[in-house]
Amino acid sequence: MTTVARRRMGVEERREQLIAVALDLFSHRSPEDVSIDEVAEAAGISRPLVYHYFPGKQQLYEAALRWAAEELTARFAEPHEGPLGARLLRVMERFFDFVAEHGRGFSALMRGGPAIGSGRAGALVDGVRQAAFTQILAHLDVSRPFPRLEMVVRSWISLAETTALLWLDGRRVPRTELERQLVHDFAALAAVSAAYDARMAQVVRRILADEPENGIFADLVGRLMELPEPA
Amino acid sequence: MTTVARRRMGVEERREQLIAVALDLFSHRSPEDVSIDEVAEAAGISRPLVYHYFPGKQQLYEAALRWAAEELTARFAEPHEGPLGARLLRVMERFFDFVAEHGRGFSALMRGGPAIGSGRAGALVDGVRQAAFTQILAHLDVSRPFPRLEMVVRSWISLAETTALLWLDGRRVPRTELERQLVHDFAALAAVSAAYDARMAQVVRRILADEPENGIFADLVGRLMELPEPA
Repeated sequence: MTTVARRRMGVEERREQLIAVALDLFSHRSPEDVSIDEVAEAAGISRPLVYHYFPGKQQLYEAALRWAAEELTARFAEPHEGPLGARLLRVMERFFDFVAEHGRGFSALMRGGPAIGSGRAGALVDGVRQAAFTQILAHLDVSRPFPRLEMVVRSWISLAETTALLWLDGRRVPRTELERQLVHDFAALAAVSAAYDARMAQVVRRILADEPENGIFADLVGRLMELPEPA
Repeated sequence: MTTVARRRMGVEERREQLIAVALDLFSHRSPEDVSIDEVAEAAGISRPLVYHYFPGKQQLYEAALRWAAEELTARFAEPHEGPLGARLLRVMERFFDFVAEHGRGFSALMRGGPAIGSGRAGALVDGVRQAAFTQILAHLDVSRPFPRLEMVVRSWISLAETTALLWLDGRRVPRTELERQLVHDFAALAAVSAAYDARMAQVVRRILADEPENGIFADLVGRLMELPEPA
């Protein structure tokens, strides 16, 4: 890349490039150990030019985390059409697309980091979780969640986070299986909760009523039934 | 409490008192907003005496988090006797005992805090998670976990954390039900994973083979089967 070509990069493009470089560097090492000189070198620009876009490392780090949070949230949008299981599966596919593409950025976002006050990093992560929660409630046609439904949805979200972080560590399980498994997990957690709560049972029945015979939720019951026989 | 009585408090007792006061104050407000003066006042001792035990707020905060981590970890110990479901249920009861007794300390531990580098708070929390993970593997008689088993156990641990944090927020669901539910959740997540993995299926079959007819895992299948009928 020539100097002329580098100079032609627009403001937004340059910001995005620096954010991508930052996500990569900050997730390899502690932000304290990464210098702006390294960011400049990795981006192929001068140190003063980095400061032109971001007044300091902290600002660059926060911008990088914010970018990851917004990008991830955007993947949750899903049309309100068709069986719920299939909708959730499509969201899971896009979720793992994001995790696969931006693995380091995802880890950096979820684990926060020492350079950013955990309050602010935590607020970004909580924003993503809240967006996921709101989306799921909307798909379930529930405007005011009751305690057990809130627990099922929020605890499933943390399950999806943990599963994705563990998958990133070596990618030793096919992601397509984990996408399906997480949809099954949602159904399983909802069903367990429904065993204790009539309103939850109503939600589960409503989901299953819309589910086709060969749908992903129906599939779960069959799978569970095949297992319990001792070998 | 008289000054004489206060002076009689031993070193360890005084440290524990300050840690208890710290857990309470730091979990109500950001550690930045809590002064050592307030800690001293809440403990009924002088500011210099607080510094005698802890050189600074950061050290006190870390000691408080460390106390919570150790106390919680101690609750995981469970004899290797009897059906696995019953063992896990007893651990869940002690886990919710801890959460109920030290709710603020638990939240402070799990959410970390701005005063402590998220690296160090994170390491404490990861230590607790690792202890839980190791205990569960030992009960499952597995020395080297394979990827899917690791995912099930670790993601269930995050599910238990989230469930407890949500329960603390208003305590709107009976904790005894959540203790049972989390045991059922473990079985459900293991069963879903078993549907994709032969080794996981083997683990699930082994668990179920040891389970009595009226055990907590057996109960789950019955509960699940009663639900799917559309109303």
